[in-house]
This record gives sequence, structure tokens and C-alpha cells, in this order.
Amino acid sequence: GSTTIPKPEIFKRKPLSYNYNYDLATSQGSTVMKMLFKWRGSLWQAVYKELIIWLIGYTIVSVCYRCFMSEDQQDYFERFGKYCDERMDYLPLNFVLGFFCNIIIRRWLKLFTCLGSIDNIALFVSGNVRGDEERARQIRRNIVRYCVLSQTLVFRDIHVAVRRRFPTLESVAAAGIMLPHELEEFNSIKSRYSKYWMSFNWTMELLNIAKKEKFIDGDNARNAIAQEISKFRASLTIVSMYDWVPIPLMYPQLVNMAVHTYFFLCVFTRQFFITEGAKNKTDIDLIVPFMTIIEFIFYVGWLKVAMELLNPCGEDADDFDCNLLIDRNLAIGLASVDGAFGNVPEIKPDVFNG
Amino acid sequence: GSTTIPKPEIFKRKPLSYNYNYDLATSQGSTVMKMLFKWRGSLWQAVYKELIIWLIGYTIVSVCYRCFMSEDQQDYFERFGKYCDERMDYLPLNFVLGFFCNIIIRRWLKLFTCLGSIDNIALFVSGNVRGDEERARQIRRNIVRYCVLSQTLVFRDIHVAVRRRFPTLESVAAAGIMLPHELEEFNSIKSRYSKYWMSFNWTMELLNIAKKEKFIDGDNARNAIAQEISKFRASLTIVSMYDWVPIPLMYPQLVNMAVHTYFFLCVFTRQFFITEGAKNKTDIDLIVPFMTIIEFIFYVGWLKVAMELLNPCGEDADDFDCNLLIDRNLAIGLASVDGAFGNVPEIKPDVFNG
Amino acid sequence: GSTTIPKPEIFKRKPLSYNYNYDLATSQGSTVMKMLFKWRGSLWQAVYKELIIWLIGYTIVSVCYRCFMSEDQQDYFERFGKYCDERMDYLPLNFVLGFFCNIIIRRWLKLFTCLGSIDNIALFVSGNVRGDEERARQIRRNIVRYCVLSQTLVFRDIHVAVRRRFPTLESVAAAGIMLPHELEEFNSIKSRYSKYWMSFNWTMELLNIAKKEKFIDGDNARNAIAQEISKFRASLTIVSMYDWVPIPLMYPQLVNMAVHTYFFLCVFTRQFFITEGAKNKTDIDLIVPFMTIIEFIFYVGWLKVAMELLNPCGEDADDFDCNLLIDRNLAIGLASVDGAFGNVPEIKPDVFNG
Amino acid sequence: GSTTIPKPEIFKRKPLSYNYNYDLATSQGSTVMKMLFKWRGSLWQAVYKELIIWLIGYTIVSVCYRCFMSEDQQDYFERFGKYCDERMDYLPLNFVLGFFCNIIIRRWLKLFTCLGSIDNIALFVSGNVRGDEERARQIRRNIVRYCVLSQTLVFRDIHVAVRRRFPTLESVAAAGIMLPHELEEFNSIKSRYSKYWMSFNWTMELLNIAKKEKFIDGDNARNAIAQEISKFRASLTIVSMYDWVPIPLMYPQLVNMAVHTYFFLCVFTRQFFITEGAKNKTDIDLIVPFMTIIEFIFYVGWLKVAMELLNPCGEDADDFDCNLLIDRNLAIGLASVDGAFGNVPEIKPDVFNG
Amino acid sequence: GSTTIPKPEIFKRKPLSYNYNYDLATSQGSTVMKMLFKWRGSLWQAVYKELIIWLIGYTIVSVCYRCFMSEDQQDYFERFGKYCDERMDYLPLNFVLGFFCNIIIRRWLKLFTCLGSIDNIALFVSGNVRGDEERARQIRRNIVRYCVLSQTLVFRDIHVAVRRRFPTLESVAAAGIMLPHELEEFNSIKSRYSKYWMSFNWTMELLNIAKKEKFIDGDNARNAIAQEISKFRASLTIVSMYDWVPIPLMYPQLVNMAVHTYFFLCVFTRQFFITEGAKNKTDIDLIVPFMTIIEFIFYVGWLKVAMELLNPCGEDADDFDCNLLIDRNLAIGLASVDGAFGNVPEIKPDVFNG
Repeated sequence: GSTTIPKPEIFKRKPLSYNYNYDLATSQGSTVMKMLFKWRGSLWQAVYKELIIWLIGYTIVSVCYRCFMSEDQQDYFERFGKYCDERMDYLPLNFVLGFFCNIIIRRWLKLFTCLGSIDNIALFVSGNVRGDEERARQIRRNIVRYCVLSQTLVFRDIHVAVRRRFPTLESVAAAGIMLPHELEEFNSIKSRYSKYWMSFNWTMELLNIAKKEKFIDGDNARNAIAQEISKFRASLTIVSMYDWVPIPLMYPQLVNMAVHTYFFLCVFTRQFFITEGAKNKTDIDLIVPFMTIIEFIFYVGWLKVAMELLNPCGEDADDFDCNLLIDRNLAIGLASVDGAFGNVPEIKPDVFNG
Repeated sequence: GSTTIPKPEIFKRKPLSYNYNYDLATSQGSTVMKMLFKWRGSLWQAVYKELIIWLIGYTIVSVCYRCFMSEDQQDYFERFGKYCDERMDYLPLNFVLGFFCNIIIRRWLKLFTCLGSIDNIALFVSGNVRGDEERARQIRRNIVRYCVLSQTLVFRDIHVAVRRRFPTLESVAAAGIMLPHELEEFNSIKSRYSKYWMSFNWTMELLNIAKKEKFIDGDNARNAIAQEISKFRASLTIVSMYDWVPIPLMYPQLVNMAVHTYFFLCVFTRQFFITEGAKNKTDIDLIVPFMTIIEFIFYVGWLKVAMELLNPCGEDADDFDCNLLIDRNLAIGLASVDGAFGNVPEIKPDVFNG
Repeated sequence: GSTTIPKPEIFKRKPLSYNYNYDLATSQGSTVMKMLFKWRGSLWQAVYKELIIWLIGYTIVSVCYRCFMSEDQQDYFERFGKYCDERMDYLPLNFVLGFFCNIIIRRWLKLFTCLGSIDNIALFVSGNVRGDEERARQIRRNIVRYCVLSQTLVFRDIHVAVRRRFPTLESVAAAGIMLPHELEEFNSIKSRYSKYWMSFNWTMELLNIAKKEKFIDGDNARNAIAQEISKFRASLTIVSMYDWVPIPLMYPQLVNMAVHTYFFLCVFTRQFFITEGAKNKTDIDLIVPFMTIIEFIFYVGWLKVAMELLNPCGEDADDFDCNLLIDRNLAIGLASVDGAFGNVPEIKPDVFNG
Repeated sequence: GSTTIPKPEIFKRKPLSYNYNYDLATSQGSTVMKMLFKWRGSLWQAVYKELIIWLIGYTIVSVCYRCFMSEDQQDYFERFGKYCDERMDYLPLNFVLGFFCNIIIRRWLKLFTCLGSIDNIALFVSGNVRGDEERARQIRRNIVRYCVLSQTLVFRDIHVAVRRRFPTLESVAAAGIMLPHELEEFNSIKSRYSKYWMSFNWTMELLNIAKKEKFIDGDNARNAIAQEISKFRASLTIVSMYDWVPIPLMYPQLVNMAVHTYFFLCVFTRQFFITEGAKNKTDIDLIVPFMTIIEFIFYVGWLKVAMELLNPCGEDADDFDCNLLIDRNLAIGLASVDGAFGNVPEIKPDVFNG
Repeated sequence: GSTTIPKPEIFKRKPLSYNYNYDLATSQGSTVMKMLFKWRGSLWQAVYKELIIWLIGYTIVSVCYRCFMSEDQQDYFERFGKYCDERMDYLPLNFVLGFFCNIIIRRWLKLFTCLGSIDNIALFVSGNVRGDEERARQIRRNIVRYCVLSQTLVFRDIHVAVRRRFPTLESVAAAGIMLPHELEEFNSIKSRYSKYWMSFNWTMELLNIAKKEKFIDGDNARNAIAQEISKFRASLTIVSMYDWVPIPLMYPQLVNMAVHTYFFLCVFTRQFFITEGAKNKTDIDLIVPFMTIIEFIFYVGWLKVAMELLNPCGEDADDFDCNLLIDRNLAIGLASVDGAFGNVPEIKPDVFNG
């Protein structure tokens, strides 16, 4: 038998990103302050590189303007700055970021409720596929495992971290989600399309076998399991659809173009204009354009929020941890249909019993 | 038997936050006025601390500016204030708060419809698990109790107040939601993941037992109950998912950063500039910057609305009272399947009978 | 029997609020004009009181400023007005009203589809509970009536007008929705929570009785009815949830505060400043600040829209008429399962028959 | 028999409004240009009347100002225009139209997916009610026809064009959707509420008859049809609900008031001020205020979009063509359960057969 | 038999549009840069033609103004430019594009989840229609094929590329989705409405045949398949509905009118005004109006995003590739019910087996 295969270490995952829910239990000032200064997955981490690059650019232009330009050049530069500055609102960043972020988050909120939890399948398999025999046990385990296998195959196609973990079908088999003879069976069907539907077919066959061998008692019970599998599969389809039909490239391009152009122009227009007699002479020369830095952090941060949620199946700190989900589904599913199978505490009166 | 265990006091809960629905039955002026001056859970309660801190900061700067600065320093300060004030709209608080609040409320509206009410399960258990025997009664009670137990276990992981009430599994058992021998059974399964699925498994086993012992008559009846349990469980999964995948930290950070930075700058820019000859001399010196105070209450209040709804599973006045929900589910569920079981008024003609 | 009880007059309801759908069949100018000048439930009705109060305040301040102030006072007043007027946009009413109204309407749109119509239950009861005997008829009638009873009990808790109509359970019984012996039965169960689940339990018992007495033929038929009851009950839960978890008080407070503060300030800042030499001398002195009046109607009207929809279970003209819904459900339900029961036109060829 | 009744001409409908989907297959410039200059159902058609009225008003005022006013009057008029023009942004048309239109379209998008297509019912009736006998055929036809009848009755109450086509029940019968003896049966039940539920009751009775006469084989098959009828009926309830609970009158009033007031004021404020020495002298005198005309088309057009979608059950060019839907449902339903009944191509190997 | 027909080449499709999901796995700067400079389906591709046209117009006007106009004409032109420029905000492009784009994307997000995947049908057919005989195999294949056929017929009516691929029913038959004798059968029913429901009827007949010939075992199994077909069909109805009831023509007209008018005016108002003494003399003469070019790219790009999503069933780069979907459904469906039928790996212990 295959029992000589060493137990694979499948329960590895990236350290969980900071879940601030617990910290935000109360919305009091101190809690909020603490949250503001987290680093991992934070605003600061997201924008600091861009900010440094921008500051370097700003400094170079600033030094040129203050030290190397002739008076005529300075005048030209100042008039150029004035011209642009008055027209910066041609790019309404607040509008486009607000609406873009809005639609991205809505899509993201919908997506993550479709990732698929095995719990209901395991519950119904455990409740409806009976029998303590080894074979019944294996059927139960396999139904759950095949569902997780399909989920893994779908996630491999759309999720970068899952792909990295399972670059080939062999690696899926090596992790134990698939057995070698199942991989062979899987490869025996040729198709130019993704074949994640195959293991669902296997589960249906297992249900038929289980019914024939009297582990499942009647059509009703079999159907109840099949319904749960159908729901699970439908949510996987939605997940693939979301990947297949992304928000058109133009939209994120548009938003990125707007933000980047805006701050590129700021390198020129947000200089402190210091020449006596300049029409747009700045009231004060602070050297560091801290108001624009705040603006930069704000808008680029807002853009980053949208960009991270645009593709939640990547490897950013806040992306869905689908590897964890696969592990969890497998572990819980197997425990539910095997370890905990048939397990029920003795029926005793509870304490509220009048 | 366990009947010697004293009845636990589970029906304790935090005083209900002010439910203004009844008061707002009409939207007349007087009602609205009354609502404006509530304190508990109000805007005023939410912002007064921050406002005091801000006022202290403002006063200190004000005193420095008016009393301790030299004329040059005053001039510099005034020009600095002017510079910043003209650039305050780099932070479009209205946009970012509007869109942020919008998405948070949408998420919150979705979440609370998934909290899970036991009613349908109790209804179907009561209708489909028949028999007045003690054992049938206990099975009915246990099915309901196990569902509430799962709900409790999920809420313990995501809701601060429920966690505080049930810090350990032992405390759950002490409250009577679990019996000691069930706790043992529960602990006998080892898993690195949350085990709230276990008690759902138990309910399925109970259904099987009930069917075998003829309390449930046929697959159809059993399946109807199982479907209701499946819906209940699915909504718990959604609740956990919402906790597992929060809005990325960056977004609330961004909004908080914007609001806090804005009002930090206001300490300087919203002073009354009083020097003769200052370009930005304020028209009038009122000493108290009441327009900015109004603005402060408005924007910080708006932020607080969003922050409270961001994590509704905390302990703020308006957070979901999940302890109450658990108590209610247990009480109603048990009453429905036991006290009220089999209870039906004599069938008599009603008064509309022609 | 109870047939001596006089038929109750339950079909009373408030006159229907103006339903403009029919009038707006075409969006032509004349139709729109007609709509603009409706009074009942209109914008004008909603704001006129507040407007009168505001106008009185404005007039008093106006008279003081024009007649009783010294020149110095006038100057101070004018500078104060200027100071405030320039800062009125600290309160972005358009943003906060737009977003607030948006979320309130979304919630309201969702809510009213959950109010619950008895039609499907009646349809399935009529189709699946057979028999022309008096007892079968009573069972059918009671199932429908018990569902409406539950709905009434839920609405009593959340809807002001329903509460006013049914202040006590006795009044529900007096209206005939409940019979005296049912009320007794109802009161025999003690619970600190709302007991609207009880009559659903009764319906399930009736289904069991009907099945035992062969009025319902088989589990499938019984289950089909039970499913419809379950859906009806689930929508009632959502309705209660909406009441139990309102939009946090802070948010409507915030919006009301903003609007009221804004127009309070307008009393001072929107005066016609008439002193020669005043910096902010108004171009023209019209005495009546009609632009501000328009603004007042606009923003206070927008606020009223939101406030009315915030609690649609009140007694405003546009609130849900739940009393009507209860009456309709009872009348249609009873007619469907009794008067129209077994009724089917002779099967004849139709006119399209080729 | 009734076969002597002449075939009614029910398949009349309004010419389809322009469906631009096909033309917009590519979003290239030329396509867009073509779309811009459509007339039927267009922006231009919607606003031209209002625009003409506005232009007449503008011209009258313009002529008065230029030719008949004394210098003092002109000065007063100019100062009045200036006063108003500076305060035009008290009415933020963009905000209120954006948000209003947003919520109206959302409601409209939801509504039209509930209009009800007979296809699923016909499919299940055809699949599950068997038998080539005349009687089986009539039962199948009647089930479909009764469902369409209910839909017609609902639409008569809410849709103007359907009402116009079927002013009385007799006209429904005359169109053949109802037979004379069915109309009698229908009228025999008295109710103060709409009776569209009656024909659904008839369908359930037909199902029972069909089952008794062995045309339907078993509860499962009957239930499958009943479920489809239940879904169809539920969507009709939603449609009625949308009609019963419209967006409160105040909201469209508010928006209309704002737009109309705004452009009424424009008649005065958007004149070309030509007096030498007028503070607000216009830079150029073009006589035709074409910028305001563009603004007029834009905002009034936006308002029209919202107003047309507010009540899609009217007779505007873009309103739902419910008469067509009824005809289509009847024709397709009857064809599906009768003409195409039992029809299945011989089972042959397909071409992809390996 | 029909086996002599050559295998059709149905698996042709347009090259997939650029799916940027994988590239955006991390939201780091370099990735974003790469994305910005994609061409296919990009912002740049979408706007370059319009931009060139606009630039030509601008240049012509510019040359006229600078070279051919008299001083008086220049003065008139400058005052005209000033007049318009100050009124450009009469067209709030940001508002109308933000809201329009928002609603279009929401509709689009909803639509693409309804396109219909065959997977669940294939899964249930494979699991519930048993038998290795040729006839059982053909029945399974035909059920799947008929569903895809219906989908093809629906898509032909609404999707331009599918229409182009299948201009006639004969071409559908030529592609093998329909067999010649099926086409005959199809044509034998006359109807003025689309007949895509016919092949669904055939599937139901096949289910009945399969049940009679014992390939399907019992009503439960048959019903499970029928339910999946019903869901598939319902989603096709939604797709047709979306096509039948488009967003009213007025709305896209409005948005297009606004954007085109705006940039038409810009040709005049965004010139560099260079006459000495012009009130609105531009600070600097750059000849190339690059700020307006940026604005042009931004707004026209935003418009293009909306226009592409408005009709996703066209032939733009980002439109739904429904031809691919049809091919995929057919290939996967047939593989699932035939090639992979009855296929299940030997039941062996898995590696996590304790």
C-alpha cells in the first residue's frame, strides 16, 4: 500500500498578515494611534519606496532651480510652474480614486465569500456516508480530499502563491493531496482546458459506489451530499470567472497614469518659488515641501489600497492566503469525516432542563 | 444525573445601546432635536476626548503666538499658517471619508444578516423530531444546544465581548452551553484549526440516531432539518471569513492619517492672525475658533462612525451584542423544541369564517 | 363554538400615501409639474415648519442689525458674518447627505422586499392540504392565520402604527387574528424574549396532524409547505434584525448636526450687509434672502428624505403600511385556502389551440 | 366547443425602442458618433421641449433688459444677476443628480430581472406532465396560460401600457388569455384586494388533477413544477412591491425642484451684461448663451434619465415593454408544452464522438 | 450514420486579451510601470485616434489665431476663449463619469457571473445517468450538447462575435453543435420569438427517456439534473434580459455629449493667449498644450472604460470571449460525461491516514 509514503509537511504557510480586528475592539484614541504605527502591511510600507524616489527627483530639480539657473531660466521655470499648478485640477484624483477604489473593494468583498469552505461537504459526508469499515472510511476521506484537490487545481491557475507552492501536478501529488495512481488517472484524460472538474466527477462516482455498497442509505442522502458539492463547485467557478474576466486593463492604467502624472508634475510645480518679483512667489521657503509629501502619501496610499485589492490572488501582505485555506480545508475535512466520525457525546439532560 | 448542577446565570448581557428606532417614528423636528442630545453612543461621546486634546494644543500654540513670539517670529508663523492653509485641500477629507464610510457600512450591513438565528432549526427540529419520551426530548434539546455551541465557539474567536465572557472552553462548559462529558469529547480531537465544526457533526449524528430510533420519520424530514443546519453553518462561515479577511490595514490607516494630519495642521493654520499688516489677517478675532471646532466634530465624528462599523465585533456601544444573541438563541431554541413541543391549540373555527 | 363572536373590523388602514407611479407614466413636462405641486407626503410639507422657524430667526437678526445696532456693532457683526461665510464649506453638506442618503436608501430597498407576503404559503397549503371536510378547511385556515399572527407579533415590536393598533396581545385576539384559547396557550409559555416563533411551531404541528389525518399526502407535500413557511420566517428574522441593529446613532446625529449648524450659522452670514464701506457689502439689498431659502428647502428636504427612510417603520406618510400588509395577507390567505379551495375552471381548449 | 372563437390578434406591440447594443459592438469613434445622433429615445428628444421653453423665457428677459429698461433698472438687474450668479452653487445639481440617478438605476436594474419569464415553468411542465391525450395537452396548456394570466393581472395594476391594452377583465378574456367560463369563476370570488393569486391556485389544482389522472408521475415531479411556479410568483410579488412602495415622493420632487429652480434663475443670471461700468460685465456679447444651453441639455438630460427609470412601467420609449413580454411568454409557453411536446431528435452519435 | 462528417474545427478563438492578473501579483512599483506601458487593450490604444484628431483641430485653430487673425479678431477670440474657459465647469465631467462608470461596472460585474458554465450539469449527468452502453453514452453527450446549443443560440442573438462565427443556424450545424436531423426538427417549429428553449425541452425528453430505459435510477436523480439545467437556463434568461433592456440610450448619449463638447470647446479655450494686454494672457507660451492633452487622455480614457463595459458582448479587446466559453463548455462537458465517465481511481488509503 501507499502507507510507506512519508507524511508530507503540507501545513506550511506564510506568516499571517496583521489582523487588526482584535486591536480595534474599541475605537478609542489610543488603539487608533497604535494602529497608525504598525509597519507590516501598512500604508508606510506601501509608499515609502515611491516617496524616496519622488523626494530624490524633487531635490534634484530644487537644487537646479536654486543654484544653477540663470535669472531668465528661473523666470521661465517659475512661469512654467505657475502654468501647471493652476491646471493641476485637470486631474481629479479624488474622484477617480474614490470611484475606482469603491468598485474594486466591492468586487473583492464578493470574491472572498466565494473562496470555498469544505465544512458543509464534510458535515454531510460525515452524516450521510455511514459505516466504520475501512472502505467506508476511505470513501469519506476521498470525497473530501477530491474536493480539496479541485480547489487546489483552481487556485493553482489563479493564485500566485499557490502556484509557487504547487508548480506542477507532481508537486500536488507529492504534498499528498493527490495519490500517484490518481495522478495517472488524471493525466489519462487529455484536454486543452483546465481539468479541475475531474476530481468532482470522482466524488460523484464515489457517491454512487457508496450507495451501491450501502454506505449511503437512499437517494435523498446521496443527493444532499451532491447538492453541497454542487454549491462548492459553483463558487469555484465564480472564482475562476473573476480571474478570467478582470476589470479591463484600461481602468487601472487610467488611475495609475493619473496619479503618476500628477506627482511627476508636482516635482516642478510644488517647488518653493523664491525669486523676488515672481508672481507666484511662495509665502515662505521651507525647503521641504511637507504639504506635498502628505498629499503624496495620501494619494499614492489610496492608489496602493486599490491596486492590492485589484488582484487579491497575489503575494502582497493582504492578499488571500489560499495556501492556508487549502490546508485548513484538508485538515478539517479529514478530521470531520474520519477522526470525528460517528462521535457523539452520550445523550444526557442539559443544565437548563426544567 | 447532571441535574444537580445549579442553573447557570447565562442571561447576563451589557445594557442595550440606545435603539432610536422607536423615537424616530416620525421625522418631526422635536423628535430630531431629542435625538441630537442623546449622550450614550452619541457623536458627542465619541469625539469629546479628541476635541479636548485638540483644544489644549490649540490654546498652547495660541498663547505662544500672541504672548511669547517676537514680531519676526509672528511674521514667520503667519506666513507658515498662510502657506499651509492654502494647501489644506490637498487632503480631501470629504471624499475619502464618504467613500470609506460607504464601503464599511455596506460590509457591515451584509455581516449582521449573517449572525445566525436558531429559529428555523428549532422550528424544523420541533416539527420533525417527534416523540414525548425523555430521550426524544433530549435529542431535540441537544441538537439546538450544539448549534448554539458552535455559534459560541465561532463568536469566541472573533468577538471581544464573547471572548471576555468565555475566556476558556471550561467557561463555556460552566455556562452550561456544553456539558462536562461533551467538553472531554471535544478535547479528544486534536486540531490546529478552530474546531467549531465538531458540534455540527454531533447534530448530524443525533439526526441519524433519531431516525434510527424512529423519532424522525423518513429521509425527507431528516434532510429538511439538515438543510436548515447547513444554512446556519454557512452563515457562520461567512462571519468567520469577514474576520479572517479584514479590509486591508492600509485603508483605515490612510483615512486616520488624513484626518489626524489635517487637524494637527489646523492647530497652526486656524489661529486668528492678528498682527497689523499680516497678509492673511483674520477679519475678526474671536479667540475661540468655533468654525474649526464644528469642522472637527464633523469630520472626527464621521471617522468614528466608520471606525466603529469597521469592527462591529468589539465592545463599543453600537457593536453587535453577540452575547445577547447567544442567550436568545439558546433560550428560544430550547423553549421551542421542549416547552412548546407538541403544543398546538385546539382546532376551532376562526372569526372570519363565513 | 366561537361563531357568535361578531366579525371584527380589521380592514381599517391609513389612507394610502400618494402613489405617484401612475402619474409618472410618462416623464413629460406637464406630468412633472403636477408632481411638483403635490402636498401630501411632499417636500413642501416636510420642510415648511422648519423653514418658518428659520425665517423668524432670520427676521429677528435682520431687524436687530438694521435698526438697533450702533455702527461699531454693525461693523463687528459684518466682520463676524464675513468670517463665518468664508468658512461655511467646512461643512460639506452635499457630500455627507449624498453618501448618507445613498446608504439609507440601499438599506430601505433591501428591507421592504423582506416584509413578507403570505401568497406562496397560501398557494402551497391550498395545493397540498386536501379535503373538503370542515376539519381540513380549519387546518388550512389556521396555518395561514398562524403565519399572519407571527408576522403581526413581529411588526408589533418594530412598527409604530402596528403597535398603536395592537397595543396588547388581547387586542390582537380581539381583532380575530388570534382566538381566545390560542392566546391562553400562547401565554402559557414564559419567555423573556419575543415569542413570535410559537405560532410557527403551531403551523408545523398542524402540518403533522394534517399528514396523520391524510389531508397531506406524503412527506414531499408537507416539506414543500414547510419550506415556504421557513422562507417566510427567515424574512421576518431579517426584518427584526434590521430593527435590532440600526445604523449607529452617531451617523444620523452627525448629519443632523451638520445641517442644523449650517443653517443656524446662515442666520448670521446670509444677512444683506448694507453698511457703506463694509468689505462684504452685498451687491443688492433684497431684504428676503431667497437664495438661502432655496438652499434651505433643498438641503433640509434632502435630510428629510434620509430621515424618513431611516426608520420606515414609523408613521410618516411614506412609511411602510404594515397594517395594510397584515390585513391583505390575512384576507388573501384565507380566501386562497378556503373560498377558492378546490376551485378550478373546467378544462376546455383555449383559443390559441391550433 | 370554444374553437369557433376567432383567433385573437394578441401579438401587437409598440415598435421596439432603439436597442443600441448591436451598434455599440465596438466602442470606436465612428460608432459613437452615429449613436450620438439617434433621435428616438434620445437625449435630444427628451430635452428639446423644455429647451425651447427656456429659450423663449431667456429671449423675453434679454429683450427687456437690452431695449426697455432704464439705466437704473439695468443697474438693478445687473446687481441682481450678480447676486444670484455668485450663489448658484447653493444648488449642487451634480451631487444630487449623481446620487439620485445612482439609486434609481440600481433599483431599476433589480426590477427588470424580476419581470418573470415563463420558460422554466414551460420546460418543467413539458418534461413532467406526460401524455399525448387531448386532456393532458389541455392541462399543460392551461398551466402555462394561467401563469401568464396572473402575470397579466399583476402588470395591469402597475404598467400603464398593459392597462391601456387590457382596461377590463373582459378585455383580457377577449384576448384569449382567459376563457369566458374562467372569467366567471374568477368573478365568483369577491375580494377587496387584487386577485392575481387565483390563477396560481388553479395551476396547483391542475397539478393535483394531473397527478391523480397519472399524467404526472409522483410527488417529485409535481413538486418540481410547483417550485418553478413558486419562483415565478415570488418574482411577481417583488414587482408589485416595487410598485407598492415607491421611492418617497419627496426625493424626485427635491431633484426636480432643484433643477427647475436652477434654470429658472439662469434666465436672469446668465444674461450677457453689457452696460459699461457694470461690475459683472460679460467679456463678450454673444447674444446666444450657448454655454448655458449646453449646461441645460446636460443637467435636464441627466434628470430625464433618472425620471424615466424612476417609473419604468410607463409608456416612455425606454420603459419595459411588458405587453411584448406577456405575448412572448404566452407564445413560447404554449409552443413549448404543446407544439414541441414530446419532440426529441433521434439519438445519434454527434460529430465529436471519438 | 453521421460519422462521416469531418471533425469540425470549433476550437478557434480570438487571441486572449492581456490578462494582467498574474503580472499584478505584487503591487510593487516596477510591476505597475510594466503594466502602464502595455499596448493591447490599453488606455493608449483606446484614445490615440481621438487624440490625434483633437490635436489636428487644435493646431489648425492655433495657426489661425497666431498667423492669420487681425488684432481685432485676436481680441475677439481671446475674449471668447475667456468667456468659455470660465464656464467650462458647467460640464462636471468628473461627476458624470464617476457615477456612470460606477453603474456600468456594477452591471457588468453582475452580467459575467451569469454567462453560464456547463460544469454542474455535466457533473450531475455524469453522476446520475449511468450505463456504459452506446445509447446511454449518447444520451449523456446529447444532454450536454443541447445545453451548449441553447447557450449558442442565445449568444448568437446578443454577442457580435458569436453572431459573426455563426451567421446562420446552418453554420451552427456545420460546427457540429447541432446535427442535421436536429436542425430539421428545430426548423419544424415555427415561432416569431427566439427558439432557444427548444433544445432545453429536448434535454428534458432525454431525461425522461433515460429514466424509462433505466439509465437514471429514480425521480430524485432525474430531478437533480433537471435542477441544474433549470439554473443554467435561468442564467441565460438573465443574459438575454440584460440585452433586451439596455441602459437607456439617453445616458450614454449624455456622457458622450458632455465629454465631446467639453473637448471641442477646449480647442478654443485652451489656446495659449499671447497678445500683449490680453486679460487672460497665458503665463507662458509652450505651444503644445500638454496639460490639456493629459486631461484629454484622462477623461476620454475614462469614457472609453465605460463605453467598453456598456456593451461587453461586442468585439473590443476586453469584451467577454463567448466563443471561447462555448468551446470550453462543449469540450469539458463532453469529456466529463463520456471520456471521464465512470472513471474513478482505485480507493486507497491517503497519506494523511493516521
